[in-house]
Amino acid sequence: MARPIRFNAFAMNTVGHQSPGLWRHPEDESWRYADLRFWTELALTLEAGCFDALFLADVLGVYDVYQGSADAALRHAVQVPTNDPLLLVPAMAAATTDLGFGVTFSLSYEHPYPFARRMSTLDHLTRGRVGWNIVTGYLDSAARNLGLSQQGAHDARYDYAEEYLEVVYKLWEASWEDGAVRRDRQGRVYTDPSRVHPIAHAGEHFRVPGIHLCEPSPQRTPLLYQAGTSPRGRAFAGKHAEAVFISAPSRAILKKQVDGIRSAAVAAGRRADEIRIYGQALIVTASTEAEAQRKFADYREHVDVEAALALLSGWTGIDFAGYGHGDPIRHIENDAGRTALASFTTDDPSRLWTVGEAARFVGLGGRGPVLVGDPGQVADQLEGWLDETGIDGFNLAFAITPGTFRDVVELVVPELQKRGRYATSYTAGTLRHKLLGQGDHLPPHHPGRQFHAAHPATATPSKEPA
Amino acid sequence: MARPIRFNAFAMNTVGHQSPGLWRHPEDESWRYADLRFWTELALTLEAGCFDALFLADVLGVYDVYQGSADAALRHAVQVPTNDPLLLVPAMAAATTDLGFGVTFSLSYEHPYPFARRMSTLDHLTRGRVGWNIVTGYLDSAARNLGLSQQGAHDARYDYAEEYLEVVYKLWEASWEDGAVRRDRQGRVYTDPSRVHPIAHAGEHFRVPGIHLCEPSPQRTPLLYQAGTSPRGRAFAGKHAEAVFISAPSRAILKKQVDGIRSAAVAAGRRADEIRIYGQALIVTASTEAEAQRKFADYREHVDVEAALALLSGWTGIDFAGYGHGDPIRHIENDAGRTALASFTTDDPSRLWTVGEAARFVGLGGRGPVLVGDPGQVADQLEGWLDETGIDGFNLAFAITPGTFRDVVELVVPELQKRGRYATSYTAGTLRHKLLGQGDHLPPHHPGRQFHAAHPATATPSKEPA
Repeated sequence: MARPIRFNAFAMNTVGHQSPGLWRHPEDESWRYADLRFWTELALTLEAGCFDALFLADVLGVYDVYQGSADAALRHAVQVPTNDPLLLVPAMAAATTDLGFGVTFSLSYEHPYPFARRMSTLDHLTRGRVGWNIVTGYLDSAARNLGLSQQGAHDARYDYAEEYLEVVYKLWEASWEDGAVRRDRQGRVYTDPSRVHPIAHAGEHFRVPGIHLCEPSPQRTPLLYQAGTSPRGRAFAGKHAEAVFISAPSRAILKKQVDGIRSAAVAAGRRADEIRIYGQALIVTASTEAEAQRKFADYREHVDVEAALALLSGWTGIDFAGYGHGDPIRHIENDAGRTALASFTTDDPSRLWTVGEAARFVGLGGRGPVLVGDPGQVADQLEGWLDETGIDGFNLAFAITPGTFRDVVELVVPELQKRGRYATSYTAGTLRHKLLGQGDHLPPHHPGRQFHAAHPATATPSKEPA
Repeated sequence: MARPIRFNAFAMNTVGHQSPGLWRHPEDESWRYADLRFWTELALTLEAGCFDALFLADVLGVYDVYQGSADAALRHAVQVPTNDPLLLVPAMAAATTDLGFGVTFSLSYEHPYPFARRMSTLDHLTRGRVGWNIVTGYLDSAARNLGLSQQGAHDARYDYAEEYLEVVYKLWEASWEDGAVRRDRQGRVYTDPSRVHPIAHAGEHFRVPGIHLCEPSPQRTPLLYQAGTSPRGRAFAGKHAEAVFISAPSRAILKKQVDGIRSAAVAAGRRADEIRIYGQALIVTASTEAEAQRKFADYREHVDVEAALALLSGWTGIDFAGYGHGDPIRHIENDAGRTALASFTTDDPSRLWTVGEAARFVGLGGRGPVLVGDPGQVADQLEGWLDETGIDGFNLAFAITPGTFRDVVELVVPELQKRGRYATSYTAGTLRHKLLGQGDHLPPHHPGRQFHAAHPATATPSKEPA
């Protein structure tokens, strides 16, 4: 039987996101990002379309590589202003029952002890519907504002990340036994102290002697997302990630990435199918092909090349202001640049992208393909991409929001459901169980699970105190 | 005309809070603290009673002074488990329109750059209804888990706090001019970059060269709460705080604290009435006096002395396990201990409290008075306390939640309204304007306001893009 197709929505607590300049489109409402109702309405739309999750990107800095300043980013609202993503989740959780929430948080910017509490809190409040997109660092501008001269070297960041994860795994998995919370009114015991353990972590970067402050949440460890595609990032994802976001402009390149991630999982002692992989895409659809194409042309007209170059310069670390729009891209000056620019390579290796072409490409939906057509045509393309690459679903960027997502929910989801390729209701349970079908907690051979102390099984009391 | 009486609700994202052991009461629902509906229901109750705000306390550590371990705190759920307070606000904000939210956040535990973004985000999402309770440090157990040997010395903490505030003031007040955000679709300008300024902060503790990541929120700087009563803390409050929480067991002591804070404000160049002062209290009421007394006796029976001693030991730094319950309290071993124990002194200076008496006193409602009676009797006491001490209102702890708050809203608020001493509806506008009546932003002579650049006045465009 054909594998089901899964959808995530890709957004950010900012104006625009992956379609720089599109905030100017008369139907775009991303300028409402600071209004809670914008987000609760979006969450309800996505839940009506059985989306796995709303995935919130984040940066703690500004895109200031282009022209050596943040001016272009500010002028075109290229992911600035940008608000905190975690604080959107509780209101959306209150408005929904099944939608998951993936939140980006860089472990370079906060100590693991308070961060572990934040995520446990979100996991409690969402009833087990939260995921953490593990980011190891990002913009130099963020590092500078935290008092560091620049972000750490790429590989050293991953070593730091390994210890950070060890600390939070210990807090989430090892500190409180399953039966520790008794809520026994008669016996005067809320928590049995003999079943709560200091983690006594003493490592190179962190010393955390104490107990976790939170009682176990539905998932304990939140679902772990990752987006790394560098060799070191892929190994990290293969070891830790339960869901991975990737992007590529062609099926062949995407398939290579998928194979690499699944191999990395196997190399880390896990199963290849134990990671859900979402490929980034933008869907532009309407009830007829002609209307979809008109919509696509309209969106393309609203792409702002300067805005796109500000984004591209930030991603790659290369100031594209020094190049003409017609200049071919030859320069690959550093590792980040290589990674980002690799995503513009098409199946035709002889194709040389110009600066302007690259800008217009990332200017609509970021680094993935744009799938245009009536619902049937889009469904055909989705099936083709999924079946040929081995991904499990799509991380859907928007051209305009919530318009792009509404189109998908109203037009594409029913078409896929008709074809038997899309869920018609949610699986009960936590986000982890919905995605992987193996229960609420990390599976036994996940590295985080090793910290879950092998305590004698005890009955967890019902939620209501006795 | 008699001054109006204001109410705040005092709670925490934990089981119990200021009434250790009361979670065992059959009507207490604080065990639902991890359920969003518990908080949205509470917020609606408080808003129906025209409360100024729900004030959320927080600790990032555990009470482990008693018996040198966290066992008693765990057993009796003495503020552990405890979840993050900030994450409760968005869901409650979505459910309400006027209630304010005061959140406790210690500036010892996070860099000001991401923290400023969190608070701006909350101020946007609540439409200007958020306040920050500035805490400069707290439990040693928290400091240890952040990799520090212990929290900084008391006065040094306030120096650090001064620089921390300078950084966040610059981010909130100075970085984005009022007219910086244009949202001009035709002109292709979301933000005018010439009106967004790097703060270029370089101090002893922090270097923050860049711009704030958020566009100005309704209040810019959130309403500033403080609770310090040490001499250094009082000077800090006099300079920065717009609302202050204090607690004392007698009117005479409370009045001294009030006078001290208002004098500190004047000494800092502000007006004495520019700070709203809330005295902590617990109200136990019912439709008849007899029923109120029965309720009070019932609550008292549920106080757990060991739980109260765990709390008291954490507050004072003195391990009361070394004393018999009948021992008089003579030992005042350190500054924190002196401060906390001073609050047990009554108007009768010859009265010597025993350990057990002190435990039973803090065991119900914490460090403030317990006002028991029918609605008229409670209203009489509230008027007396307010008129004799110069406070502006009460920070109401609970014996059981939401029961205590429901009783106040249903019984005491109508009685006070009948007497013309309590608002019958909310003032429009932000939390700051509701409380102080002087507009949304910091007043001109507040130290944070000095960072608000004197830029030429420009019209702020309407929210909807042009």
